Amino acid sequence: MSAIEDLITEFGRLPGVGQKTAQRLAYHLLKTSNEEAMQLSRAIERVVEEVEACSECGNLSDADPCEFCSDPRRDHGHVCVVEEASDITAIEKSGHFDGLYHVLGGRLSPLDGVGPEDLNVQRLMERLRDGVDEVTIATNPSVEGEATATYLHRMISQMEGVRVTRLARGLPVGGDLEYADGVTIAEAFSGRREM
Amino acid sequence: MSAIEDLITEFGRLPGVGQKTAQRLAYHLLKTSNEEAMQLSRAIERVVEEVEACSECGNLSDADPCEFCSDPRRDHGHVCVVEEASDITAIEKSGHFDGLYHVLGGRLSPLDGVGPEDLNVQRLMERLRDGVDEVTIATNPSVEGEATATYLHRMISQMEGVRVTRLARGLPVGGDLEYADGVTIAEAFSGRREM
Repeated sequence: MSAIEDLITEFGRLPGVGQKTAQRLAYHLLKTSNEEAMQLSRAIERVVEEVEACSECGNLSDADPCEFCSDPRRDHGHVCVVEEASDITAIEKSGHFDGLYHVLGGRLSPLDGVGPEDLNVQRLMERLRDGVDEVTIATNPSVEGEATATYLHRMISQMEGVRVTRLARGLPVGGDLEYADGVTIAEAFSGRREM
Repeated sequence: MSAIEDLITEFGRLPGVGQKTAQRLAYHLLKTSNEEAMQLSRAIERVVEEVEACSECGNLSDADPCEFCSDPRRDHGHVCVVEEASDITAIEKSGHFDGLYHVLGGRLSPLDGVGPEDLNVQRLMERLRDGVDEVTIATNPSVEGEATATYLHRMISQMEGVRVTRLARGLPVGGDLEYADGVTIAEAFSGRREM
């Protein structure tokens, strides 16, 4: 396989990258300076070498414990449970949470053969014994995310002194009522607040 | 900058890759095996090290002359002129051309300051003196591609014994007449053929 074909194949393995996009990306790198292409190559290498799951929370980071777990300014009594490390970035951007995270590494999905033992649940239970007073479950608002949230709620509610919350459901800001689905509108009604 | 942020930045430099896609790609590589991620890193490195423009036709290849120029089974009397090396892949896929290629490396674009001296034109003229009897101009069907085609036609028609052709314009196969633009329909009419 020629070097170009090889690169197109490798780009094509990435999610959401089809044959044509892979080709466009490969030819883009060929047209840019060698330095720029090598920067991408080295960034991948660096991530492979340096990034590991945090032994505390499962977040992907080049430090262990990660930048959140080791930050004394964050609220160590409040843990937000997410499905994937990438969800943390979205929450951090909102700037509305200053506790710690816990990454499950997926969601319960019996059809795909993913049970509780495949998720980072046991470590979560251990952490909760350690002075945590609130757990906010921030799994995705999907059927599987909901099932995971229900399972975690049942597990955690057996522990004393830990409050379990979950993110509110409702209309997304900037969304259009006309295009919102019925379930979302129903959730928005049942969660309505005094103005 | 952390290793993950670094990789997201590098992915974000690629064309058509925004912040969110860059993040998705980076986290995908983190979730796959290290081996798969390193394969992409090495493929980029290999392309940077091995791929160069063919000194004959300007095609990007890891051999010089490239696989087309060095193939005795191809028709060396017929040259197809394209804007970019990536156009060659599209033409090869059609399986309808067995001559050689010539890559201009762009198109005439006075607004962007691209003149004939910035394109691989001189080498084309030299090649045409060497037993070529047909040049098919396959620049893009855009204003700039057309201007480039007109310019090349004027240059080449000064040479004796070289026929200049261009790819037909018309309705794209699988397209819908209702959605075709007026210029395409006009071209399809003026190029109509006996059934």
